[in-house]
Amino acid sequence: MKPEAAPHSALVSFVSDFGHDDWFVGVVHGVLIEICPHARIVDLTHEIPPGQVERAAFVLEAACPDLPPGTVNLAVVDPGVGTGRRALAVRGRGQLFVGPDNGILEWALSDPEAEVRALAEERWFRHPVSRTFHGRDVFAPVAAHLACGTPLDAFGPRISDPARLPRPPARAQDGELMGRVMFVDRFGNALTNLTAASLANAFPGVPEEKLDVRIGSRAIRGLSRSYGDAAIGTLVAIIGSSGRLEIAQVGGSAAIRFGLGEGDPVVVSAAG
Amino acid sequence: MKPEAAPHSALVSFVSDFGHDDWFVGVVHGVLIEICPHARIVDLTHEIPPGQVERAAFVLEAACPDLPPGTVNLAVVDPGVGTGRRALAVRGRGQLFVGPDNGILEWALSDPEAEVRALAEERWFRHPVSRTFHGRDVFAPVAAHLACGTPLDAFGPRISDPARLPRPPARAQDGELMGRVMFVDRFGNALTNLTAASLANAFPGVPEEKLDVRIGSRAIRGLSRSYGDAAIGTLVAIIGSSGRLEIAQVGGSAAIRFGLGEGDPVVVSAAG
Amino acid sequence: MKPEAAPHSALVSFVSDFGHDDWFVGVVHGVLIEICPHARIVDLTHEIPPGQVERAAFVLEAACPDLPPGTVNLAVVDPGVGTGRRALAVRGRGQLFVGPDNGILEWALSDPEAEVRALAEERWFRHPVSRTFHGRDVFAPVAAHLACGTPLDAFGPRISDPARLPRPPARAQDGELMGRVMFVDRFGNALTNLTAASLANAFPGVPEEKLDVRIGSRAIRGLSRSYGDAAIGTLVAIIGSSGRLEIAQVGGSAAIRFGLGEGDPVVVSAAG
Repeated sequence: MKPEAAPHSALVSFVSDFGHDDWFVGVVHGVLIEICPHARIVDLTHEIPPGQVERAAFVLEAACPDLPPGTVNLAVVDPGVGTGRRALAVRGRGQLFVGPDNGILEWALSDPEAEVRALAEERWFRHPVSRTFHGRDVFAPVAAHLACGTPLDAFGPRISDPARLPRPPARAQDGELMGRVMFVDRFGNALTNLTAASLANAFPGVPEEKLDVRIGSRAIRGLSRSYGDAAIGTLVAIIGSSGRLEIAQVGGSAAIRFGLGEGDPVVVSAAG
Repeated sequence: MKPEAAPHSALVSFVSDFGHDDWFVGVVHGVLIEICPHARIVDLTHEIPPGQVERAAFVLEAACPDLPPGTVNLAVVDPGVGTGRRALAVRGRGQLFVGPDNGILEWALSDPEAEVRALAEERWFRHPVSRTFHGRDVFAPVAAHLACGTPLDAFGPRISDPARLPRPPARAQDGELMGRVMFVDRFGNALTNLTAASLANAFPGVPEEKLDVRIGSRAIRGLSRSYGDAAIGTLVAIIGSSGRLEIAQVGGSAAIRFGLGEGDPVVVSAAG
Repeated sequence: MKPEAAPHSALVSFVSDFGHDDWFVGVVHGVLIEICPHARIVDLTHEIPPGQVERAAFVLEAACPDLPPGTVNLAVVDPGVGTGRRALAVRGRGQLFVGPDNGILEWALSDPEAEVRALAEERWFRHPVSRTFHGRDVFAPVAAHLACGTPLDAFGPRISDPARLPRPPARAQDGELMGRVMFVDRFGNALTNLTAASLANAFPGVPEEKLDVRIGSRAIRGLSRSYGDAAIGTLVAIIGSSGRLEIAQVGGSAAIRFGLGEGDPVVVSAAG
């Protein structure tokens, strides 16, 4: 396949559930580089547990705002590979996204201006297309061509009904803001769906140190400004690096110590 | 060391048993880039269990057909490092390979046209050559020079007796084709040594859905066309992405659920 | 941010405790590439256990001598993020280093010629600077600008009191040289702080095969020249690939079999 001309940006991010024990991530890199030799590839994570589409969608939501405009984000958690599920390319939030039509691209799709295309033009695929590895044969080739400048409309028709993920928003009621834990990270910090913006909106004029947080039977008085603000072992609430309220333990894993997990309800209120 | 001129292809794949906890993979990348700055490096996997040469050989066999012609494949699972075992560079199957003479390059060596060279020219090595890390001091420098265009014959003399791996082929008998599990992947799929070609050869004219598969006490009627063809939990047989018969569980790990492992016998027959 | 002109070297190594389950490593790569598009990034390891500054410092000490002069080493194990701890850029041992002022850069700082700068010039940072992820917002941008040629003195004033790690040197007494295990690697080899140079200095003229090693209740007679010098299962002592005395088990894990761990005392003596 003839490499295409270099555009100004050719950063390709890649998230999957492929793990690192096999060769799947490697051959996807090979396909990307063969088609778009100057693409720079950034692996977000490949340790999504097999088939956990929601978790990969959250990784994109948390990571992509840190990537440059124009980045092509390749997302492959694809339990429906080989069935009739569609394949998508999306322009949204100033970036491009390629992946299966199973909700993994929720963050891009939630942009009201998103342009969503079904990957119908098989000439961009790697042939023969296998039944079980569209990461290699469909998604990576399309991502590489996008990174090298092929326009989005070349890949297939616009569609208006992509699969969406339910994303219950934070809910304000009786002076409380209710959210939930979305992701527990390596450090045992529990990231919630409560953003700094949603807190500011629910509690206008209330400074962070006057916001209280309840998670399970635990209460945290006031948001902290750093992990180091309190004694080792203390449970703190903090606005984390992706702009979300996080529950953390100073010098340890809040998730392990306090048994926090995805889906746990979190309630914020203004100090009495 | 002076970087060499850029050839048309400079993709280097890298497989090892180094893992990701230490710095070994990183310094090999550093050596490759120092010698051949424009090389693109693709990590296949570094999670080969220590010393498992056969598993690394299978990874090369499964992954390399997906890499571009001319790729330089660096393979370092080297329990004999520092002993008298030879070091090799091989041209075979349209690509180049560098690694110890312990069978890890079996897939390249099984090409009847393979050109096999012993790495005798120490001027290409990194000096001083350590006793315990030839990945850094011998194999990576040679791979980098190959990637940057040094011809194969510069590295040492041809040899005709490289170490080979026993690779028992699929065996046809009494209308059955007998093979074995070669590799269990991250998703719990059991990859066999039965290729689509060997099935077509053993059962000419028989469509895939009319082939039955036995593994242990389990029988699977007909090959499936995708993981999604049957209900969650069903054991299916399918031609996987590297063209081999795989045993998979829909929506789960066949290996865990049914206790499948490397070496398990697999028998295919035409439906009665 | 406008990319800067390319200098002769733009290799960036990266060590952290971020792991591979989340997106932290990926967004740091994204920040590096956005600022310095031609930088080549080499991941040393991201599997430092959370907050283990000493272990990361050892990785730099072991790995950096294998990297080219001028390499920019980005080191982020930063339990004090968001507190008053300083951030540093250091020129030492022919390379550049960026990381928190917590001892992680000990190897660079132990160069008596080291030039140490506090990162005071916020114009090089990524804004807004978060409270919890200075790897992304402070250290990566500075590393990228260094890799792309911004001179060290642009980042802040020289300081003379960086935090240092206690590094008890090998101790000679009564004809014995006493050290300790610094790191157990993936293969179960126990790397010590006893270098080939310190052995040569303590036992002038004594050949390696005449040096005995004691670790716990185990005695090893003579250093070996390769892991393959003795029968499978034998405990051997050997000068490893980073020039340190290692305790290894032929064909297995010395650490698991003999219960070796970081901090274990190791004693070398000349054979009687």
